[in-house]
Amino acid sequence: MPIDPAASVEVTAYRWVPPMARGFVKDVRVRWALEEIGLPYRVRLLGGAGGEKSSELLADQPFGQVPVYKEPGLTLFESGAILIHLGEKDARLLPRDPIARARAIGWTLAALNSVEPMTQLLFVTGFVSDGKAWQDDAKTAVRPFAQARLSQLSTVLGEREWLEQGFTIGDLLMIDVLRAVSEPDLVAAHPNLAAYIERGAARPAFERAMAAHLADLAETP
Amino acid sequence: MPIDPAASVEVTAYRWVPPMARGFVKDVRVRWALEEIGLPYRVRLLGGAGGEKSSELLADQPFGQVPVYKEPGLTLFESGAILIHLGEKDARLLPRDPIARARAIGWTLAALNSVEPMTQLLFVTGFVSDGKAWQDDAKTAVRPFAQARLSQLSTVLGEREWLEQGFTIGDLLMIDVLRAVSEPDLVAAHPNLAAYIERGAARPAFERAMAAHLADLAETP
Repeated sequence: MPIDPAASVEVTAYRWVPPMARGFVKDVRVRWALEEIGLPYRVRLLGGAGGEKSSELLADQPFGQVPVYKEPGLTLFESGAILIHLGEKDARLLPRDPIARARAIGWTLAALNSVEPMTQLLFVTGFVSDGKAWQDDAKTAVRPFAQARLSQLSTVLGEREWLEQGFTIGDLLMIDVLRAVSEPDLVAAHPNLAAYIERGAARPAFERAMAAHLADLAETP
Repeated sequence: MPIDPAASVEVTAYRWVPPMARGFVKDVRVRWALEEIGLPYRVRLLGGAGGEKSSELLADQPFGQVPVYKEPGLTLFESGAILIHLGEKDARLLPRDPIARARAIGWTLAALNSVEPMTQLLFVTGFVSDGKAWQDDAKTAVRPFAQARLSQLSTVLGEREWLEQGFTIGDLLMIDVLRAVSEPDLVAAHPNLAAYIERGAARPAFERAMAAHLADLAETP
């Protein structure tokens, strides 16, 4: 099991998050990648009872987010950058062939800069308009952006198992973005995307990462 | 000058965009990087009078966006992935030292997955609510997300010239994101960010890229 208190790699995670965020914090992405390649890591828990103050996080992560990744000589934030870094350590996450490698990084950025901003737009719009008279209008106005990206992604994925030849960090991130879509019907409208998420979630590395993420969360703040 | 109709590198751009988008299409990012390293490229214009149909773009870019980057053997989309690819060709965009390289990729992802989604959230919210009674409420609700990111970025940049030692693709993308913020007052509230944008825009490579971008845009659709 990659979790090892003596590991030289450290990943930050929250000690507590609200129920709706459980299973969806971005340390899952990094734990998943570490599990895929069997690289041991220790966890540094932040916030909540038994966790460090978030001011300690800000010293390493200017945006106050998790995860932060540390290994001797390097402190790195942004889950996408951490996954590219891990991919460079192991061809099971990022192919060695330069063309295949560039394409996998392309999907990594597609997940994080073309798909996630639009699904997040829908989530945040719903969140900030909670209880407001304009909530339905606002969600109706932004939903098509998310729907368009999901439809385009469904078309390009087609009947393939992964976005390129073999699983890469591009799939890992895309699946992690898709499973967090705040209106599940939008994904369910595309059976191939739903099956793609299932294929990702059925990987033993994902299951171990999710179990470890959930095990680290306290019941109360 | 990097633009060369016989170049082996191709970048797509639009033949026409609405006035508000001029200077802000994402081909600017890639042209800028190509100018920084003096790598010749040819332009493939899409849409509008004299441009190809967007259906031809979809064959190369599933989300229908520009730019698409081509070189012999590789078709690549997502401006962030294209910049990482170009950075690997030339240390003037991405340092060779592994630690410095990882940190620069960290800022690249920070620009594209932590800052841009929040500034884009404000822009899209304003766009979709144009003329609606709830526009002010909605913009007021999402503005703090953009403000928080800009404030955090201002703190971490401090009085430094660039985000790490020397200009990298992380600065290039961050500056390109910042100069597109739809409410300029949000950036002007942080003089060091305003100066950072100016430093980027004063680079001869940026000036040449912007001139080439604007020169390719037709006056009418």
